[in-house]
Amino acid sequence: MTDLIASLRQIVGDAHVLTDGDLTAYEQDWRRRVHGKALAVVRPANTAQVAAVVKACAANGTSIVPQGGNTGLVVGSTPDTSGQQVVLNLGRMQAIRAIDKDNLTVTVEAGCILQTLQERCESQGYLFPLSLAAEGSCTIGGNLGTNAGGTQVVRYGNTRELCLGLEVVNAQGEVWEGLKGLRKDNTGYDLRNLFIGSEGTLGVITAATMKIYPMPASQLTAWAALPSFDAAVRLLALAHQYLGAGLTGFEVMNRFALTLVDKHMPQLRVPFIDNPAFPYAVVLENSDSESEEHARSRFEALMEAAFEQEIVLDAVVAENLAQAHTLWHIRESIPLAQVEEGLNIKHDISVPISRIPEFVEHATQVLNDKVPGMRLVNFGHLGDGNLHFNVQAPEGVDAKQFLDEREHEVNHIVYDAVAAFGGSISAEHGIGTLKVDTLPQYQSPVALSMMRAVKAALDPQNIMNPHAMITRG
Amino acid sequence: MTDLIASLRQIVGDAHVLTDGDLTAYEQDWRRRVHGKALAVVRPANTAQVAAVVKACAANGTSIVPQGGNTGLVVGSTPDTSGQQVVLNLGRMQAIRAIDKDNLTVTVEAGCILQTLQERCESQGYLFPLSLAAEGSCTIGGNLGTNAGGTQVVRYGNTRELCLGLEVVNAQGEVWEGLKGLRKDNTGYDLRNLFIGSEGTLGVITAATMKIYPMPASQLTAWAALPSFDAAVRLLALAHQYLGAGLTGFEVMNRFALTLVDKHMPQLRVPFIDNPAFPYAVVLENSDSESEEHARSRFEALMEAAFEQEIVLDAVVAENLAQAHTLWHIRESIPLAQVEEGLNIKHDISVPISRIPEFVEHATQVLNDKVPGMRLVNFGHLGDGNLHFNVQAPEGVDAKQFLDEREHEVNHIVYDAVAAFGGSISAEHGIGTLKVDTLPQYQSPVALSMMRAVKAALDPQNIMNPHAMITRG
Repeated sequence: MTDLIASLRQIVGDAHVLTDGDLTAYEQDWRRRVHGKALAVVRPANTAQVAAVVKACAANGTSIVPQGGNTGLVVGSTPDTSGQQVVLNLGRMQAIRAIDKDNLTVTVEAGCILQTLQERCESQGYLFPLSLAAEGSCTIGGNLGTNAGGTQVVRYGNTRELCLGLEVVNAQGEVWEGLKGLRKDNTGYDLRNLFIGSEGTLGVITAATMKIYPMPASQLTAWAALPSFDAAVRLLALAHQYLGAGLTGFEVMNRFALTLVDKHMPQLRVPFIDNPAFPYAVVLENSDSESEEHARSRFEALMEAAFEQEIVLDAVVAENLAQAHTLWHIRESIPLAQVEEGLNIKHDISVPISRIPEFVEHATQVLNDKVPGMRLVNFGHLGDGNLHFNVQAPEGVDAKQFLDEREHEVNHIVYDAVAAFGGSISAEHGIGTLKVDTLPQYQSPVALSMMRAVKAALDPQNIMNPHAMITRG
Repeated sequence: MTDLIASLRQIVGDAHVLTDGDLTAYEQDWRRRVHGKALAVVRPANTAQVAAVVKACAANGTSIVPQGGNTGLVVGSTPDTSGQQVVLNLGRMQAIRAIDKDNLTVTVEAGCILQTLQERCESQGYLFPLSLAAEGSCTIGGNLGTNAGGTQVVRYGNTRELCLGLEVVNAQGEVWEGLKGLRKDNTGYDLRNLFIGSEGTLGVITAATMKIYPMPASQLTAWAALPSFDAAVRLLALAHQYLGAGLTGFEVMNRFALTLVDKHMPQLRVPFIDNPAFPYAVVLENSDSESEEHARSRFEALMEAAFEQEIVLDAVVAENLAQAHTLWHIRESIPLAQVEEGLNIKHDISVPISRIPEFVEHATQVLNDKVPGMRLVNFGHLGDGNLHFNVQAPEGVDAKQFLDEREHEVNHIVYDAVAAFGGSISAEHGIGTLKVDTLPQYQSPVALSMMRAVKAALDPQNIMNPHAMITRG
């Protein structure tokens, strides 16, 4: 092992092989569920160093945990407790290599912070639309490794759909230079999409060519209070019809989620919260290539139709950017409001949009039966069929104790309901090590066996993030 | 072999195992370059039969060529001449299983004709946007197997981007039921995209869940005559800015392509053809979720800006649907006009949009130097960086003889130029058997070795379309 560490020091320099001191930021996951112990944290400066690190580890049979901002929610980027895994942190590879305006692409290294990338593109007049809660600290490499979702997926797709090319160091330490910024390229199997979302289990993404868009002339935000969950699905269909590709955000929140925000962040002023009639609210965003006036007139036409069909109880369109930010801020404060209320049991699920109302009704009923008094924080990206369907302890019950006693049972109640409605137990967070034992219970056995074959083919030594996503059959 | 044929007859019924008579439609490719000989053509009625056929062939070590409409341009869906391969034609599996309006998806069997699918969706008020020349006879399974492109990719992406789920029979004859119509699903490797574009070399796609869109309120078409190729790239950037996601088509055509249409289909009246100043023209389509008036006003704003910047010489916006169809018909008649003029050497290439003007200049110059008098038919989907860059024999030279003598050389001139500009030698047609020997010369060796590993992992017997796309290393 000391030989390996010496080799690693030679490759990336002494200062970038961390073995002592407080390595919590690298060894502990974002939600502080697991604290591992690394053999070393290695921070390469460039792709050649990544390749050399992988080769050295492979020669030594040492496994590697690739790591970006380490903000994932499924414990997929931290080492186990053996002290035998190398954490390969991409944080020093931050360069934005090129913005190609005519090609509408940006080529960026894996360790670039998402928000930095957004801001750099915006400063040139372009939109990089990936947007999610951790954007201030997550990296584009981590976004790609986990196929991150977020709030703009209804229009722009997941990270996968934004990527045109990758540079990858494979499990043999070879560099695949696949950074072509092409919108059409049918020259073999789709390795790009195989690596995207593979959670570092097949290789290390070191850089990517991503799509960018001309900045819309206007982005308007609206908030609507709704009489039912079904009304939210009706409103979504109407929004697709009236706004077309202008619909860039459609988030749903149940009343309990909003009462938590109202309780813990009263300064945020949740719209219509005093109107006891609404069980759900949505935030909508309309991006327009023409003008704010036009965006506003389309929103008004949409809302008029929605009022006429009685699927909206009340609505407000933000008058200015500050108001828009406030509305989004309320939506984005739900996770923190949950924390204030006490730990809860989180689910990141998706269901075909047409079946969501029925799913919510069914799952809620089963939960009420089995876990009397449980309180449901139901919110998320309805435009993508993706809900964060979180179960909070009954009023007055200790949150920690509730989790310890009921988490496993509650997970299975929710996942069984998801499966019954043709959904996914991980819509956007991935599998990591947290759901690695759950996955085989809900994924098709045929799919699993093909995944294992792919893993064995591309990483025959099983050194790439071996405890995450998929275990050897 | 007679045992296998007996088994196949038992599985699909005697009438659907073809061994005698004229099997040209199944054994010869679309462009009539290759005429193979099948052991049998098998036409299963459902997924269970496909699985049983694959199992029977696998048990016998007999290789399978999956086939849809057999309209591909790279000889990827016809048998070799050995008389030992089974053609698995999906033509009887045509059902449109479900249209889910709230989920904006359609679930369809592989053998459904693309145009049938378009029409069925349209009759329900929805757009299925995949559109290409062969749509009257190609199948959605073939579109998926080859990741077909076409004319709407600039907005809706390739077939890949339109697919949310697959049902697949793998090389072991197992059925992967992956038809979930989910927009977010991070539960393992992206098998869906691995099968899409794999040209039947990993398994057989039997059904798919595809995205649909609310029918736009208006689709307007415009035609512009341009002073240069560079102006086309400038106009594309302007169109992205003015139309946003409204830009659903952007096709470029060089003057020679249009003179061929004018010569062989004079009734089509190519706009501005008598104006000798324009070397290029483009067709643009603007889809609007609001109204025709709005679509027209956006087109006018775009064209005004374009005239001001002197990147458009002349332009016309279709006044009605008939005029729009006529403009598109001119564009779509280029392939036939080429046939009338005589066979030529075809290329389906892509280059980053920012580098296309330089690529065209460079490649044209090298071709002029090496093949004096050659005539270039340059047209295609500029919005995706995809050109059909076809080389016609010099005036008066016999086309057949020109092909026989120069095709290999011309291909390499063009492909070397494509490689020098970071492009792809197959943008939308795929590799098939036609380019299987060319691919390794232009694809990354690291990528090729990973592709071969995937192929060996998922099809260890090498029975799935073994001569197409990728050969064992």
